[in-house]
Amino acid sequence: MKYIAEIDIMPLRELLDPQGKTVSNNMKNVDIDGVEDVRIGKHIRMTFSASTEEAAKNKVETACKKLLANPIMEAYTYSVHTAE
Amino acid sequence: MKYIAEIDIMPLRELLDPQGKTVSNNMKNVDIDGVEDVRIGKHIRMTFSASTEEAAKNKVETACKKLLANPIMEAYTYSVHTAE
Repeated sequence: MKYIAEIDIMPLRELLDPQGKTVSNNMKNVDIDGVEDVRIGKHIRMTFSASTEEAAKNKVETACKKLLANPIMEAYTYSVHTAE
Repeated sequence: MKYIAEIDIMPLRELLDPQGKTVSNNMKNVDIDGVEDVRIGKHIRMTFSASTEEAAKNKVETACKKLLANPIMEAYTYSVHTAE
């Protein structure tokens, strides 16, 4: 079965995000006011095969832990759905 | 009213994504097989205030068009929800 995982990897809340801060500060230059905070992370779309949804989630969890996210600076969330 | 926008900015399907390709090729080194494709883009979380949900969506649309996404190379999708 083919699955698609949508993974978000964001800088931890406790850490500064200078890229996000810069974007936040520049929103008024494109006439957007009322912006309080912008945080910028990564979005990863992974297409892969697995036998069951359980196995698919395990693969994504392993990928995040071992390769995609740096746990000292980043937190990850993901959702897995079958590919149409 | 306070809103949070979750914005995904991904490289267009037609374009090569060398960063994603590299990650994809390295999945087997962390014992994950069956990976077909990995695409890497940005995830942006924006906290902002707007009068209505309609206005909130307009703000996010404008932000993506004018500042966040490069339409030549990237496509954006977003969802807006009220902040708890």
